[in-house]
Amino acid sequence: MWRELAPVGRDSGSGGYRRYAWNEADADCRAWFRAQAETRGLAYELDRNGNQWAWLGDPSAGDAVVTGSHLDSVPDGGAFDGPLGVVSSFAALDELRRRGARFAKPLAITNFGDEEGARFGLACVGSRLTAGQLTVEKAHELRDGDGVPLTRAMEAAGYDPSAIGPDPERLAGIGAFIELHVEQGRALDLSGDRVGIASAIWPHGRWRFDFHGEANHAGTTRLADRRDPMLTYAETVLAARREAELAGALATFGKISVEPNGVNAIPSLVRGWLDSRAADQSALDTVVAAVEAAAREHADRAGIELRVVRESFTPVVEFEHALRNEIGRILGERPPVLGTGAGHDAGILSGSIPTAMLFVRNPTGVSHSPAEFAAEDDCAAGVLALADVLEGLACA
Amino acid sequence: MWRELAPVGRDSGSGGYRRYAWNEADADCRAWFRAQAETRGLAYELDRNGNQWAWLGDPSAGDAVVTGSHLDSVPDGGAFDGPLGVVSSFAALDELRRRGARFAKPLAITNFGDEEGARFGLACVGSRLTAGQLTVEKAHELRDGDGVPLTRAMEAAGYDPSAIGPDPERLAGIGAFIELHVEQGRALDLSGDRVGIASAIWPHGRWRFDFHGEANHAGTTRLADRRDPMLTYAETVLAARREAELAGALATFGKISVEPNGVNAIPSLVRGWLDSRAADQSALDTVVAAVEAAAREHADRAGIELRVVRESFTPVVEFEHALRNEIGRILGERPPVLGTGAGHDAGILSGSIPTAMLFVRNPTGVSHSPAEFAAEDDCAAGVLALADVLEGLACA
Repeated sequence: MWRELAPVGRDSGSGGYRRYAWNEADADCRAWFRAQAETRGLAYELDRNGNQWAWLGDPSAGDAVVTGSHLDSVPDGGAFDGPLGVVSSFAALDELRRRGARFAKPLAITNFGDEEGARFGLACVGSRLTAGQLTVEKAHELRDGDGVPLTRAMEAAGYDPSAIGPDPERLAGIGAFIELHVEQGRALDLSGDRVGIASAIWPHGRWRFDFHGEANHAGTTRLADRRDPMLTYAETVLAARREAELAGALATFGKISVEPNGVNAIPSLVRGWLDSRAADQSALDTVVAAVEAAAREHADRAGIELRVVRESFTPVVEFEHALRNEIGRILGERPPVLGTGAGHDAGILSGSIPTAMLFVRNPTGVSHSPAEFAAEDDCAAGVLALADVLEGLACA
Repeated sequence: MWRELAPVGRDSGSGGYRRYAWNEADADCRAWFRAQAETRGLAYELDRNGNQWAWLGDPSAGDAVVTGSHLDSVPDGGAFDGPLGVVSSFAALDELRRRGARFAKPLAITNFGDEEGARFGLACVGSRLTAGQLTVEKAHELRDGDGVPLTRAMEAAGYDPSAIGPDPERLAGIGAFIELHVEQGRALDLSGDRVGIASAIWPHGRWRFDFHGEANHAGTTRLADRRDPMLTYAETVLAARREAELAGALATFGKISVEPNGVNAIPSLVRGWLDSRAADQSALDTVVAAVEAAAREHADRAGIELRVVRESFTPVVEFEHALRNEIGRILGERPPVLGTGAGHDAGILSGSIPTAMLFVRNPTGVSHSPAEFAAEDDCAAGVLALADVLEGLACA
């Protein structure tokens, strides 16, 4: 399976994946999913929001056990973020059939559409629509970098966008959703475990810092006469790192936009985006407040006007304790429980149904990069753990 | 004159000028120049490199006195950088005619093409071609941001690009070139003078700093595991300011390019451009070496790979002392002599013919911005000073 999927949507230059919602590589991934379902005699279904389902047993029986992840990628993403969960789901089903497992509940494998949000700028569009966390109106407003609306992109890929919207009946028929995912940090590597259970998704948000200075000639303006917002930006980047270290949190300035962005021009505007996440709300509040305070102090001193806008925010997601404990019990030797700073479909769905996540060790912690990796043995351990969990939850 | 030229190529949103080589606003400026020449009965001429000339007297007589500047602008530039010199040239001629001056030498007013290099990325294309400081081959390689070659742009504007190249005969017929320009700093404001004489153009250059780190997920990568080039860039920006202060020089990071430039992505590459200038070569060398050393130290500590490329460099230009002294003598009460960090057509031509520059006071020092300004009284003083100089150099 892994070998079939490996070349799809891979850029020959970067070695990274470019599987974006409703593009050609995405269509190839979807065709692969459907073929995997049909090869196993599973009932293939495409839901109203473009998410793919492969059913064993009768969905209408209710209390279904569902597992899966996503197949799309960030720009030049790695091979594991998403696909490892889908491939492991099919492999776990194969393992359960080898064991001769008898299913007492319906089982489904899913591929949620547009998890990364690489094309339309919003993550987890497929699961958000299903859970009613993204309104149909807002979905109609989504456009890609070329101005193509999401609905037009769905149509172009041969899907009917007129039916998109909340799908409460579908969710009502699901008893548990388990998402297996490559770890995007090094906690398992440091603890020496192959597989872990998610405790929570950290609260996280994005803040835009606009530093307004004064455009001027870089070759003639005395240093004392400058109001150079790049200097205040630089101080703020370093302050963010310091404050995150102090609070045991994460803070990153990874995106910047500069006007006029000329070699011989002191900028009039530097716009920097802060991404920050922490294990709990109060730590996150502390970091962001401290970064803003430092930015303001430097801005005041340098005659820079600062505006800070919170562009998005997601509160902490605690995965259901009962399901997490049940999985711990099934896996016996209690695997490590770890938080994560990344969003997932499981996080979205946790507002509607019991969800849980398994993480597979990532020796470098690198993710969203062609260097993303998990060892074959660890992936196999992930498949066995997922099979055990599905057996424990769905079999008689 | 000023009122006629004011609206040409002005953006209604920013209030800044967008007069780029061979665009529509540039054509309007050129038509304005030609009309001013013809109104005054001057012989209009377009040279092989697209520079405009307005002649009083016979050019072939030799030892001509030439004055002028340029009419193009940087993106969202001010009204004075360039046009003040051209408008003042015509006004100075009007003043000399009022005085009943008798010209012993031919006099010309010029508009050099593409001084700012806003469109094709190289400054002073018109004067460089004429002086042989830009080869025809290199000129043919120049392309704008949309990939349009310079030669195609000239053709589209109705000019014949086949003749471009060095013009030594033209330069041989010129005895002196005087460029009047708005000051792009506050030296005259601080000394309380309306008009000054240029001593030299500081040596200056552009260096590209490539900080290569490791792309990773901003939400899951531990701070300790990061190789984030934005941090090293920030340290380098602050080091550049410190080192410039220490050396009494200028250093600016005004342009940046980030990959992948995503809010939730630690960058794989941050590319920053350093513009640095100083009164002499050794001060400039000191600043650039110190900034590079600081960048390297931070890069080594953070696991960042640093590459520094010098993209351009212009050595110091000393304006001819004899001409400068002559102008000082003509203007009587010796006006202040000042250096500048900005490049000019006069700097290019100084390699071929005696050149000099007059600066008009800029109360804020702001340039390359819609806020660029010179008071009417100061502009009038500039016109009178230029008239005095032309009279002293060209009249019997």
